[in-house]
Amino acid sequence: MRLGPPSGFRDFAPADMILRKKVISIIEDSFIRYGYDPIETPVLEYWETFKGKYGEETENKLMYKFKDPWSDKWFALRFDLTVPMARFFASKAFPIPFKRYHIGRVWRHERPQRGRYREFWQADADIIGSEYPEADAELLDLTIHTMLKLGFNKFTVKLNDRRLLKGIFEEELGLRDVLATYRAIDKLDKIGYDGVKEELRKVGLSENTINRIIEIISTEFSSTSSLDHLIEQFSGNENVEAGIKHLTEIIDLLGNKKRYVSISLNLVRGLDYYTGPVWEVILADVPLGSVAGGGRYDDLIGIYAGKKYPATGTSFGVERIIDAGKEIGIFNADKVTYTQIYITTISREAFRYAWNLVKILRNSGFSAQIDLMRRTERKQREYANKKNIPIVIYIGPKELAENKLTIYNRRTNERWQIDKNEVIEFLRRLL
Amino acid sequence: MRLGPPSGFRDFAPADMILRKKVISIIEDSFIRYGYDPIETPVLEYWETFKGKYGEETENKLMYKFKDPWSDKWFALRFDLTVPMARFFASKAFPIPFKRYHIGRVWRHERPQRGRYREFWQADADIIGSEYPEADAELLDLTIHTMLKLGFNKFTVKLNDRRLLKGIFEEELGLRDVLATYRAIDKLDKIGYDGVKEELRKVGLSENTINRIIEIISTEFSSTSSLDHLIEQFSGNENVEAGIKHLTEIIDLLGNKKRYVSISLNLVRGLDYYTGPVWEVILADVPLGSVAGGGRYDDLIGIYAGKKYPATGTSFGVERIIDAGKEIGIFNADKVTYTQIYITTISREAFRYAWNLVKILRNSGFSAQIDLMRRTERKQREYANKKNIPIVIYIGPKELAENKLTIYNRRTNERWQIDKNEVIEFLRRLL
Repeated sequence: MRLGPPSGFRDFAPADMILRKKVISIIEDSFIRYGYDPIETPVLEYWETFKGKYGEETENKLMYKFKDPWSDKWFALRFDLTVPMARFFASKAFPIPFKRYHIGRVWRHERPQRGRYREFWQADADIIGSEYPEADAELLDLTIHTMLKLGFNKFTVKLNDRRLLKGIFEEELGLRDVLATYRAIDKLDKIGYDGVKEELRKVGLSENTINRIIEIISTEFSSTSSLDHLIEQFSGNENVEAGIKHLTEIIDLLGNKKRYVSISLNLVRGLDYYTGPVWEVILADVPLGSVAGGGRYDDLIGIYAGKKYPATGTSFGVERIIDAGKEIGIFNADKVTYTQIYITTISREAFRYAWNLVKILRNSGFSAQIDLMRRTERKQREYANKKNIPIVIYIGPKELAENKLTIYNRRTNERWQIDKNEVIEFLRRLL
Repeated sequence: MRLGPPSGFRDFAPADMILRKKVISIIEDSFIRYGYDPIETPVLEYWETFKGKYGEETENKLMYKFKDPWSDKWFALRFDLTVPMARFFASKAFPIPFKRYHIGRVWRHERPQRGRYREFWQADADIIGSEYPEADAELLDLTIHTMLKLGFNKFTVKLNDRRLLKGIFEEELGLRDVLATYRAIDKLDKIGYDGVKEELRKVGLSENTINRIIEIISTEFSSTSSLDHLIEQFSGNENVEAGIKHLTEIIDLLGNKKRYVSISLNLVRGLDYYTGPVWEVILADVPLGSVAGGGRYDDLIGIYAGKKYPATGTSFGVERIIDAGKEIGIFNADKVTYTQIYITTISREAFRYAWNLVKILRNSGFSAQIDLMRRTERKQREYANKKNIPIVIYIGPKELAENKLTIYNRRTNERWQIDKNEVIEFLRRLL
């Protein structure tokens, strides 16, 4: 009998979940503060909803497609939360700007490795309806705010604009199939400059062109200074100028937070649907790839809506954030229960007394447990210890006779005997 | 271009989600108070993990099975949260009792209709490791507590015990294939007594036997009185006696809450894995089927663990609860945003002033929005109205000149002009 989940899929024990829920609630709290509201879509869509949105390689090698067992339709598990949102948005008359968040799973047939799973959670915030840098700036502000709230402080937001790359490559290099070039550059983190060169050779570019591409993408600018430098070098190119103007306005709006941003011409992001600014958050101390990323996709929603809706969005990789946070020591998964109080009993009579008490505790909002296995008092205490439940209430013969409770704080090793009718007030002070 | 999700699947707009999250958080709060901790498992499992656990009809007609596109393995989307938990529990050494909750989606190829979807959410709480009525009683207490917290007060918990049915049918009727009989009885709500008769004929039972079955299952008892009556009628049958003893202890432990319980011999629950008490929550005023249900499955975990672990669990159908709550008027989906404050501006200069203000509001914990579309002040106000955002802050020339803010409470129609540096304190009092 198989005991494991499918390869690349994972189970989450209470300790993992308690940490995940904490991380997700910090992200969700940010989304709500910034004025985003929740939506949800199915885990699977008709395959034709996805087809042609991500690029051939992704669609053929990374997506879970299968035939509906009951119809002649093909389904696919969602690869991201953006395309299903675009499809949903187009089906409804939401007021714009439509600012939505969506925290949910996606599926990608990646080779399982550190920081990469086949089933993982994304937390996305998107703005539909605004073509302006204000929208991108708000999302970058939100992204940086969230990283700081999560407890990260050493990270860089790599920022680029697809129009910048497109303009430079068109003007300088006269490339036709820029998407193939982007996909090659996108693998830089994984395969290094030599690997990118190899990929570009497969695209059919000359050595000369390849060397110019490598030269361009190996430049990184600190955010404030060097957009001027680009303007001088490529003035007159419409795409470059539009990209620079957009990025300049974004950086201006970021205020203090611009110190986290670095303009990086090697950042492309793999998906075909991006059209303007793109960004990724890279941690300084953990070589895990990006933990968040996003960008503008002004043409995607029009495919469904039949009318152009400019759009931009940011996305957090929940697993990567957790793995990285554990590694640098800002998170740990050592809390195994939400339970605050365990009541131990020494007899069936004490159990009846405790059974009523536990109801009172729960009705007062405490998380409380009681023995359900008719165990000895010692075994009950062992269970409370294993679970690291902070408060143990003991009900023995003396407590029963005098209508008292003995309360023990496992963490401080303090002990009190109190009247039963004082218990709620006492525990409220204690917890 | 398709705009809909697959047939039987649904999208959730912000208004739906805000209601769902409220309902789920009430359920989750109950689970935590009663001492249950969260787990999560993948949405899909190897098919062989599920095979033989639910019964042939379910496995052939209701489960989404498909071949992994990359391996020779068959996968299936999970049909419930119980079997994946059993598989997971067996793979780890959790301390017992293992009290876990799991709130997540399941997939069933049902015919889409009112209250029935192909993708829906279950919220489950289970106890692994206790064979005692205390465990079932705690889950029933939790179930009733949660229904009341959700705002329902007219409901019945139908309670039965598989051993009771088995004993009666064995002793009285000498049936062999009790599972086939249960499956027929389980359809009572959908197909009525005549339909059940028809199904039982297909099982191959005589008219005489069928009539006895109908007679037995049409009896309902109020919880307190009539177990005695059953004991007299079927004394000596081991199954009947075990079932009655277990039910009697459960009802005794329920105390006041037993007024919601009714012993119903026609309640069987469709799944093969139940072995002892089974229950379902039926609303008095909404003919939607059960909104929650559960039972004991002492043999399921042993299949994976190789060792018997008695277990029992309760499960809420989130969609049914929401649909029913909307119908009887205790829920509505009229809140379309979490946003508390919208800042309107009349110029680019006012926008820069507001852009700093909105950061301050967000840092202070408020949910706030600002114009991202360079709209007129009138259009901005229209947006705030459409979203029903309670507070609007206006920044015009006078406000800019005097470092003031005009604050408008859309709900009470009140208006104040305040100093900018008083805003946080002012809004804290207001919201």
